[in-house]
Amino acid sequence: MSRVYNFSAGPAVLPEVVLKEAAAEMLDYQGSGMSVMEMSHRTKLYQGILDAAEEDLRQLLDIPGNYKVLFLQGGAYQQFAAVPMNLMKNKVADYIITGQWAKKAWQEAKMYGQANAIASSADRNFSYIPDCSDLPISENADYVYICENNTIYGTKFHQLPNTKGKPLVADVSSCFLSEPVDMTKYAVMYGGVQKNIGPAGVVIAIVRDDMITDDVLPGTPTMLKYKTQADAGSLFNTPPAYGIYICGKVFKWLKGLGGLEAVKAMNEEKAAILYDFLDQSSLFKGTVEKDSRSLMNVPFVTGDTEKDAAFVKAAEQAGFVNLKGHRTVGGMRASIYNAMPKEGVVKLVEFMDRFEKENR
Amino acid sequence: MSRVYNFSAGPAVLPEVVLKEAAAEMLDYQGSGMSVMEMSHRTKLYQGILDAAEEDLRQLLDIPGNYKVLFLQGGAYQQFAAVPMNLMKNKVADYIITGQWAKKAWQEAKMYGQANAIASSADRNFSYIPDCSDLPISENADYVYICENNTIYGTKFHQLPNTKGKPLVADVSSCFLSEPVDMTKYAVMYGGVQKNIGPAGVVIAIVRDDMITDDVLPGTPTMLKYKTQADAGSLFNTPPAYGIYICGKVFKWLKGLGGLEAVKAMNEEKAAILYDFLDQSSLFKGTVEKDSRSLMNVPFVTGDTEKDAAFVKAAEQAGFVNLKGHRTVGGMRASIYNAMPKEGVVKLVEFMDRFEKENR
Repeated sequence: MSRVYNFSAGPAVLPEVVLKEAAAEMLDYQGSGMSVMEMSHRTKLYQGILDAAEEDLRQLLDIPGNYKVLFLQGGAYQQFAAVPMNLMKNKVADYIITGQWAKKAWQEAKMYGQANAIASSADRNFSYIPDCSDLPISENADYVYICENNTIYGTKFHQLPNTKGKPLVADVSSCFLSEPVDMTKYAVMYGGVQKNIGPAGVVIAIVRDDMITDDVLPGTPTMLKYKTQADAGSLFNTPPAYGIYICGKVFKWLKGLGGLEAVKAMNEEKAAILYDFLDQSSLFKGTVEKDSRSLMNVPFVTGDTEKDAAFVKAAEQAGFVNLKGHRTVGGMRASIYNAMPKEGVVKLVEFMDRFEKENR
Repeated sequence: MSRVYNFSAGPAVLPEVVLKEAAAEMLDYQGSGMSVMEMSHRTKLYQGILDAAEEDLRQLLDIPGNYKVLFLQGGAYQQFAAVPMNLMKNKVADYIITGQWAKKAWQEAKMYGQANAIASSADRNFSYIPDCSDLPISENADYVYICENNTIYGTKFHQLPNTKGKPLVADVSSCFLSEPVDMTKYAVMYGGVQKNIGPAGVVIAIVRDDMITDDVLPGTPTMLKYKTQADAGSLFNTPPAYGIYICGKVFKWLKGLGGLEAVKAMNEEKAAILYDFLDQSSLFKGTVEKDSRSLMNVPFVTGDTEKDAAFVKAAEQAGFVNLKGHRTVGGMRASIYNAMPKEGVVKLVEFMDRFEKENR
């Protein structure tokens, strides 16, 4: 068996140790005589898996007691509807448009009320995060919405917007658990786990208690109501049980690395290796303005689409896979999530360096 | 490693060969150097997994070309809302109430229009399927809804209702792929896979083309619209990719058994072993009227709650687990899905026989 270096933007690389444990436990989880896939979600054994996952996540993110942790389904896209359905009491919300996913969330919200785009970086193809220190926040906005890390464009909010007291809602799918956060600045933080945490099919929403009410928009499906899931401890119906079990293993792995301060240091080191190379390269060039760069997704181009294609092909043959950029940016994108080992980035940069010398 | 006999109602037992394959492929799927959990859903490799799953399911159920197969999320409960949101053009639908899940689907539908309960078996604790040959179907009903197999109560529609030309919608979660069906009698058939097919977190909906339109109720989330998923081939956003991969393995396993005619014969044989024992027992008694019995879920009681509890405990110690009945029926329930080997049922009956002799 030979593992590749997988730079996929998501679903993405998982820690090898987690996969090995999952394989070893596949037919018999801890002497239960069954797989976690076969386990009733109403058993003490599964409740233990769920409780441990929540507790470890609470420790990692230092989640205050007045926030609920919800394990949900439907991907971030389903939250694009759930957020306004749960929160739009005044039917007004402000969106900051920093890429395709923020834009889609904004468009979905328009079905439910007045969703305003109060800032955007569309003018330069979303290659930066706009100044959000003094935005025209709507007086009766129910919330201010951001996509904190923009997977396609490789940008990240390094400072949260000044919401002028309005609740902040953030899609953190592609930066989830990549560094410590101050949870008290968020009213709702949610993300699909398939980038930095586990297998596709689980969304984790961390929701402040005052956002969880019965006062939702008429017609909100029971399954999309935060209160449904909060009251039932994420067990209102059968949860995506196996996915949550894998997430739990990743949480243990992150704690074993030393928690999110340590993880952040590792991510900064990995990202610096790649960005430093890009900044001195005469062939490759990062596409993002320096102060908006993501630690997780690093898009870059040669400026020549044929060379881009040749690089992607050569890289794949050398065992560096899924480096093709999103069609709206072109070129390449290296997603270097928590589970990408430093070695993978070092070797990628060595490969880029060789490619550059051979293609002057 | 010692595997138990797992009679859980869901999530439930999976074929051992499927689990073994999944374990073996966990770190490296077919030489790709990655787990299916780590695989971008936009790759040829994953598309191949998805296409094979759909094709095998189409063969197993003999699905006509004018039906779409959708791999969705959110469990059956999310479909309780999706069905009316997609189909209630006239805002009228008729529900047949044969248990808790049909009732919950009916209650959810009331949020979206006039949902009528046109028949019910609540009068005898849902222990039978009502005569549905000549029901008062509403003149402008958008659809008639059933829960075809009632997991909690152990009943099954052995004849589909006469819908008088209205589209039939069926939740088949607990009888999915247990026997052949005539798909042309259904407009929408859907089920959570966690009982008879795969890990929790995947719902399969098989939807006739004329049910898939843009004319949905206002406020229908994009993710809940059948057209969204139909147009995108279940890849509108990241699907529950690993779960679908396991479902695909189960489909191959069912084909290997000889398809659904063969599966039905096996299920009838297994169920007969248990029902025949119950019918002659002086201690245990089935709770369902004979002509409504399910092949999948078999509830039974001793009539003495202390004896019930003693039996469940003794069975668990002997390696027959998850036999406790649902609280609304009491007693015991043996769920004997496709993946429960005949040996498991034979040994359970032997154990029940011994218990009966020791507890006269």
